[in-house]
Amino acid sequence: MSLYSQFLEGSEVALSKIISHIENRSAGYQELLSKLYRNNGKAFRIGMTGPPGAGKSSLVNHLAGLFLADGRRVAIVCVDPSSPFTGGALLGDRLRMQDIPLDKGVFIRSMGSRGSSGGLAAATSNVAVALDAFGFDTVIIETVGVGQMELDIIDACDTVVVTLVPESGDAIQALKAGLMEIADVFAVNKADRVGADRMVYDLQMALEMKTGKSDWEVPIVATQAVNNQNIDQLYTDITAHRKYLEQTGNLTRKRGDQIRKKVEQVILRSLLNDINGSVLDDQALGEIVQRILSGQDDPYSVGRELYRRFKKMD
Amino acid sequence: MSLYSQFLEGSEVALSKIISHIENRSAGYQELLSKLYRNNGKAFRIGMTGPPGAGKSSLVNHLAGLFLADGRRVAIVCVDPSSPFTGGALLGDRLRMQDIPLDKGVFIRSMGSRGSSGGLAAATSNVAVALDAFGFDTVIIETVGVGQMELDIIDACDTVVVTLVPESGDAIQALKAGLMEIADVFAVNKADRVGADRMVYDLQMALEMKTGKSDWEVPIVATQAVNNQNIDQLYTDITAHRKYLEQTGNLTRKRGDQIRKKVEQVILRSLLNDINGSVLDDQALGEIVQRILSGQDDPYSVGRELYRRFKKMD
Repeated sequence: MSLYSQFLEGSEVALSKIISHIENRSAGYQELLSKLYRNNGKAFRIGMTGPPGAGKSSLVNHLAGLFLADGRRVAIVCVDPSSPFTGGALLGDRLRMQDIPLDKGVFIRSMGSRGSSGGLAAATSNVAVALDAFGFDTVIIETVGVGQMELDIIDACDTVVVTLVPESGDAIQALKAGLMEIADVFAVNKADRVGADRMVYDLQMALEMKTGKSDWEVPIVATQAVNNQNIDQLYTDITAHRKYLEQTGNLTRKRGDQIRKKVEQVILRSLLNDINGSVLDDQALGEIVQRILSGQDDPYSVGRELYRRFKKMD
Repeated sequence: MSLYSQFLEGSEVALSKIISHIENRSAGYQELLSKLYRNNGKAFRIGMTGPPGAGKSSLVNHLAGLFLADGRRVAIVCVDPSSPFTGGALLGDRLRMQDIPLDKGVFIRSMGSRGSSGGLAAATSNVAVALDAFGFDTVIIETVGVGQMELDIIDACDTVVVTLVPESGDAIQALKAGLMEIADVFAVNKADRVGADRMVYDLQMALEMKTGKSDWEVPIVATQAVNNQNIDQLYTDITAHRKYLEQTGNLTRKRGDQIRKKVEQVILRSLLNDINGSVLDDQALGEIVQRILSGQDDPYSVGRELYRRFKKMD
């Protein structure tokens, strides 16, 4: 039986293999994604982001439990752009949390950096396609930190939850990091700590001042992940946002934007492969670098020349 | 007199205009960069990164003062990947710091996001080329946060200073964020706070465990930017790293890697322009998105088909 048939029959082993296939961009992965995509578009994608140490993993685990209790099938993708490791590197962190219903069948996958800039965000959304096609109706994508790459990853989600803690800086820092723009729901975690009320207040202020407001009023939920406090409210707000997206047609608009980006990604990825296999092969590059280092040429002229040469090929 | 001639004669106004030209990628910017690059390669590029709130700006300002006192010409590029603003957006922050010798002629430039993933890192290194060609022999590139995009930006620097504070998390978080790999010098700032000694110790431990060590022993400097404490030590360590790079030939190797990346960037950028102007024009895209949304097609098949069509053109 082929890997894909096993996948269709619900083998998690086949799913894991297919995800690795997609992550590694091994031969034929795009054709595979075409097939997977046809069984796609049903899963609710939730993005969880925020600074390191905000307690995102813990919140995600509690949320996963609530989705499970509601009869959902849940997959978690944990993305660490700075890690060269994939496929379970962070599982250690997870396993230390004893109160998590991992055994109830939540599928967890870690993803690390795959070198090229922009490549990880694309790979993450591709993996979500596979999880969706497999039958997970709830896919939670969690990032370890917050930065441009993380924003790109979160861009492919339907609902974005930004988690902050009183210590992680004030609302001004969140504003600076662009978090105010992308949050559909705020969680102020570790809400028992000093400064939590103040942070909720500051976030409310910042949200008030936001221009280009939509009809959706961004909720701010004060949570305590370790004590399982107020996670049910967070869950309610997340599912409410999903309903809002569906009822207003914003979900279709979002998906349209995601499709646009994906098509561009696919084209550029193919061209990049072509370049590295032709005008930018190792030997050519070595000579180019020497010529530029010795001041006989510059990378911009060389780049343009190679571009022209590439365009003339086949 | 042309803009470029004014630039060569030392006009800061011309420099600012040329930087905007490069940032906006307006017509002919690559040809301009070719010219600038020929006057290039002399400036020492220092990257400053670390989590928001670590006091990087303050450290950078003090360091700039020390470089000035040493007879250097200093330019600071402040990169905020999440900000849509450029050209002085963060100047407000700067001006609030009264102890900075801004009036002594440090050139400061802010850069914000320019949309496309990967585009900001490329633009930042291009701007550094212009500053170098203008005659700045010390270019300090500072990021607001830390993430994949920030790591890409810092990649184009000769010496990387990672700034942490006791509150910003422990050494484990720094490890997770990939900071251990890129730091040539560590600054533990706000060293009067509780936990500073512990953090220095943890960093030492983590550095000890690092595999693939070079001959360079990464120094850890406990600083207090607000009291101007130990900044001279930081300055000494930074300049020592520069000497190390030169004496070992590592500087040439680093520059070679940077050239490689730059050439690839130039080719891909040209191809991206071609795609958006042809197979991915607005009308075509609108129809494609509709077809995929209605389930008649998928982004991977469409992307491959458009890629083939693009390759057959001209």
